[in-house]
Amino acid sequence: MIFGFLLFPDLEELDLVGPWEMVAMWSQYADGPEKCLMIAETKEPVRCSNGMVIQPHVAFEDAPRLDYLLIPGGFGTREQVDNQRLIGFVSEQAKNCKAILSVCTGSFILHACGLLKDKKATTHWLSLEHLRKFKDVEVVEERIVKDGNIWTSSGVSAGMDLALEFIEHEAGDATAGSVQSFAEYYPSGKNYGTFHTDPKAPGYLTRES
Amino acid sequence: MIFGFLLFPDLEELDLVGPWEMVAMWSQYADGPEKCLMIAETKEPVRCSNGMVIQPHVAFEDAPRLDYLLIPGGFGTREQVDNQRLIGFVSEQAKNCKAILSVCTGSFILHACGLLKDKKATTHWLSLEHLRKFKDVEVVEERIVKDGNIWTSSGVSAGMDLALEFIEHEAGDATAGSVQSFAEYYPSGKNYGTFHTDPKAPGYLTRES
Repeated sequence: MIFGFLLFPDLEELDLVGPWEMVAMWSQYADGPEKCLMIAETKEPVRCSNGMVIQPHVAFEDAPRLDYLLIPGGFGTREQVDNQRLIGFVSEQAKNCKAILSVCTGSFILHACGLLKDKKATTHWLSLEHLRKFKDVEVVEERIVKDGNIWTSSGVSAGMDLALEFIEHEAGDATAGSVQSFAEYYPSGKNYGTFHTDPKAPGYLTRES
Repeated sequence: MIFGFLLFPDLEELDLVGPWEMVAMWSQYADGPEKCLMIAETKEPVRCSNGMVIQPHVAFEDAPRLDYLLIPGGFGTREQVDNQRLIGFVSEQAKNCKAILSVCTGSFILHACGLLKDKKATTHWLSLEHLRKFKDVEVVEERIVKDGNIWTSSGVSAGMDLALEFIEHEAGDATAGSVQSFAEYYPSGKNYGTFHTDPKAPGYLTRES
């Protein structure tokens, strides 16, 4: 099994690296995918939204057939939805993938590939309205949304919750628990400021509080 | 203000990128540090523990005087505690820094610099015993530990909790809340497997459950 992670300019760092960490730990310590690869249009270094610079492992043209593909979000998605090489790559790989996952505004790339047609999906709370403008997607305000083999999540840090839920789905509760313990992913759950009770906050958050 | 992030081979990806994301959002959207820099011994690409490859922004010899410095953990720390160039760089910068932070086994680098002497500190739960062997540190099983201007955290994902707590300390609750909302850091809090009730789990976790 090969797990691909899509890179493009101005992706949001944690959208990518949160799930990368969980999946890579699954791979290394808990019999997960044999290979985890970061894949970009070319092998040139990719500058992320906050300035981190990543060297891709492989370019589109040399990428193997993927079993899983994760697509991060970030400001770069606004440009990438019109990048026919990237949309073509994702669409082509999607035909064979067991599952496709997106974090944050990565869902707009899935949409541009036609992968959200008549599906439930979500995105960063600041982009929910924009996603609702597409009449062929049912936008839901959950932290993680699974519809068939398409998984989407809310913003940035939600990719870690997405990854663990996905690992549980693929490999069971004990395996997800093992990854969670290695990553020591037991967040304090502390809320700062007042956003978590703000009417603008996404439904999954205000329903809980 | 300049916030530096230390890079070295085999650092654990999320240890670095969790806090990087929070601090960079603070910088970009909430009047945080003017500059966030990833700094390594040389400008050669750095291969992380799970295979992600990062291009450093600046080498030790060209690094500016830092106001804050964050040190990630990972298997690479075992070698780096004996790397006199790295220990020298951190020790020298620490003289001027307002605060030094470490995630996971990054605390072993702080220890090698003499920065944990007679201080409270923590690390990844799998390394607590090893840190206790140093008789000059008081190891506590908390998710985040602040002792003077030295902040340490438990493993991997704890760096995000650390960063938000640090931002609150430096810039107040509303600013930390603003960063939290942009990062949509409202974890599901779901526990998989049984580790969270295991006697081997760190104190902060089992005390809560």
